[in-house]
Amino acid sequence: MPAGLHFGPGSLNVLGNQNVKLPGSKALIVTGGSSVKRHGYLDRVQQLLRTRGVESVVFDKVQPNPIVEHVMEAAEMARESGCDFVIGLGGGSSMDSAKSIAVMLNNPGHYWDYVSGGSGKGLPIPHPVAPIVCITTTAGTGTEADPWTVITKSDTNEKIGFGCDQTFPKMSIVDPELMLTVPPHLTAYQGFDALFHAMEGYVANCATPMSDLFALKSIELIAKWLPVAVNDGSNVEARSAVAFANTLSGIVETGSCCTSEHSLEHALSAYHPEMPHGAGLIMLCEAYHAAYAPSCPERYADMARLFGEEGSIEGFLTGLRKLREACHVADLKLSDYGVDAADLAKYARNARHTMGGLFGFDRATLDEDACIEILRKSYY
Amino acid sequence: MPAGLHFGPGSLNVLGNQNVKLPGSKALIVTGGSSVKRHGYLDRVQQLLRTRGVESVVFDKVQPNPIVEHVMEAAEMARESGCDFVIGLGGGSSMDSAKSIAVMLNNPGHYWDYVSGGSGKGLPIPHPVAPIVCITTTAGTGTEADPWTVITKSDTNEKIGFGCDQTFPKMSIVDPELMLTVPPHLTAYQGFDALFHAMEGYVANCATPMSDLFALKSIELIAKWLPVAVNDGSNVEARSAVAFANTLSGIVETGSCCTSEHSLEHALSAYHPEMPHGAGLIMLCEAYHAAYAPSCPERYADMARLFGEEGSIEGFLTGLRKLREACHVADLKLSDYGVDAADLAKYARNARHTMGGLFGFDRATLDEDACIEILRKSYY
Ligand SMILES: [Zn+2]
Ligand SMILES: [Zn+2]
Repeated sequence: MPAGLHFGPGSLNVLGNQNVKLPGSKALIVTGGSSVKRHGYLDRVQQLLRTRGVESVVFDKVQPNPIVEHVMEAAEMARESGCDFVIGLGGGSSMDSAKSIAVMLNNPGHYWDYVSGGSGKGLPIPHPVAPIVCITTTAGTGTEADPWTVITKSDTNEKIGFGCDQTFPKMSIVDPELMLTVPPHLTAYQGFDALFHAMEGYVANCATPMSDLFALKSIELIAKWLPVAVNDGSNVEARSAVAFANTLSGIVETGSCCTSEHSLEHALSAYHPEMPHGAGLIMLCEAYHAAYAPSCPERYADMARLFGEEGSIEGFLTGLRKLREACHVADLKLSDYGVDAADLAKYARNARHTMGGLFGFDRATLDEDACIEILRKSYY
Repeated sequence: MPAGLHFGPGSLNVLGNQNVKLPGSKALIVTGGSSVKRHGYLDRVQQLLRTRGVESVVFDKVQPNPIVEHVMEAAEMARESGCDFVIGLGGGSSMDSAKSIAVMLNNPGHYWDYVSGGSGKGLPIPHPVAPIVCITTTAGTGTEADPWTVITKSDTNEKIGFGCDQTFPKMSIVDPELMLTVPPHLTAYQGFDALFHAMEGYVANCATPMSDLFALKSIELIAKWLPVAVNDGSNVEARSAVAFANTLSGIVETGSCCTSEHSLEHALSAYHPEMPHGAGLIMLCEAYHAAYAPSCPERYADMARLFGEEGSIEGFLTGLRKLREACHVADLKLSDYGVDAADLAKYARNARHTMGGLFGFDRATLDEDACIEILRKSYY
């Protein structure tokens, strides 16, 4: 994981540190807009850059599920403004968009030409990807420590993860002070997303001793600290622990991989863009992991012990349920988000079409019927 | 730690994998010579490179404590042969030499112009360092996962560690099968070196949650597996565990730092080049850590528990002694290597002159008298 990581309360100030090299002279700052403006983070970033003689322009239209049209529009804007690097400022959607925009800044054609999976053409990227800087204001996607970017193509209902060596950030800043203002329910959704990156990476068939090291530490930290961060958002120690866990989970996604839990969630939120990614995962998790766990019971036992439960599949499911309760997200159901029970087979098929690759990292064999059953159990 | 790490039995073959990019078209292979030739490793590396259309020339004069004259000579040889990258094949001395040679391949003047510390001038390196590949045949220095290189300047008795962002390897290969032939006493010396990199990194004042993660895992693995590897060198599982621990220790040296234990050892082996680095550390360790431990007893308690001892300074020292006994290195003393008891103050002064920087990472205050006392206790 080659990104230069700057971690800790106050670490945003490294942008103004003369000893820390910035990867360009004019930045496109990519962001979702309102909260980074309201809290003054965008102003601070621009001011810090200015002390280094780095100009910046802002693209602030990023949506919670970023769309490919915005990637193309922002890349055009960056070219016209003479930007030579891209900063993602915000949550996963802003940082992912920054990565995809950096791909298109120096490259011809359409973004979907380079995407692998679904209707993407999977062509090689001819010119170097522009340098990427990630500044995360949430603790959820871990995208500051992995090469992945998830973009939605609305007309074909495809939400696809993509990445390569060049889409690693050059520099990432993880400043827990920027996370103090995240409201409790989003803190929970994002924290659980980070948890599932670690869990899936731990049970994926491509897990390594190195990814296990990060995954187990991340699970341990989230089990202990996420309820504290949800219930007392101003607790810097809890925010720091969850932020660190989230970054570790990003490294897990680099060294290991997510499993089909993420394929299923992407299928749901491709059709229901208002459903937060973490909320979708929370709805799926009990049925999904109950179905998956028999494929590697000893790994589920390891995770159960990190929850303080007995080392068994049952202990794992109990610990996961208690954590959802402690974070006030135990009652989320697909039916709350307007998912139609008649469409479950459609989501199961979409999961295999757009993110089928992740099923190849499963230790469990989850066929279409098994996926429909997981969705059904997550419905009410 | 940006190096691309290839780990595991058989991983040397990645050199011949068309999907793995090599960082140049002609390699200088830097090695100590006899054992990598005897076991056929050098031939295998050259053959694998040839399947990729990459030519190579060999510099095989590296000494156990590599000297600056060889760095200059090999860089000249690389330039004359048109090499555009440098492969270190062997133990720490070969890989460290490769890093230093890569610095000088594209740069003017003398290596000591760029070294910081001692009589080094600490000048900025004007041209890019040539790409570095590390192929480790021992589990000791962790240099495949850090930017550091230790070179000796004999005329001034200086043995100095040096490194920067550019002296990280681009690619590192850690193939435990290449370690099966390391004899028991060297396995022990090297394994303890890796252990001390983790321990010192854990007790240094610049330790971080990330470096702690690697350090504790490395100590756990070495405590469990080093005696197995020493007593049964053909045990691939033990060799792999110790090799992995060693690589983790290298990452600790990147994220945290060694303490003055290494300064003291460097002072000894600058005057006694026949003393293996790991053996020097083993001689010093009991007196050193007994003196250091009161500065952070809870960290020593953590390490004691990884030895299976009670969590206390006494438990730590007991565990460290038992591990030395299990690896048959409990009786090493400075007096065995021709160190003169009258010279102890000279070594203590040299440690501060050539590697004084590490004292700044100590939590304990070890003045010259304290250092002399540590050396005295390590003498008989
Ligand atoms: Zn996710
Ligand atoms: Zn060492």
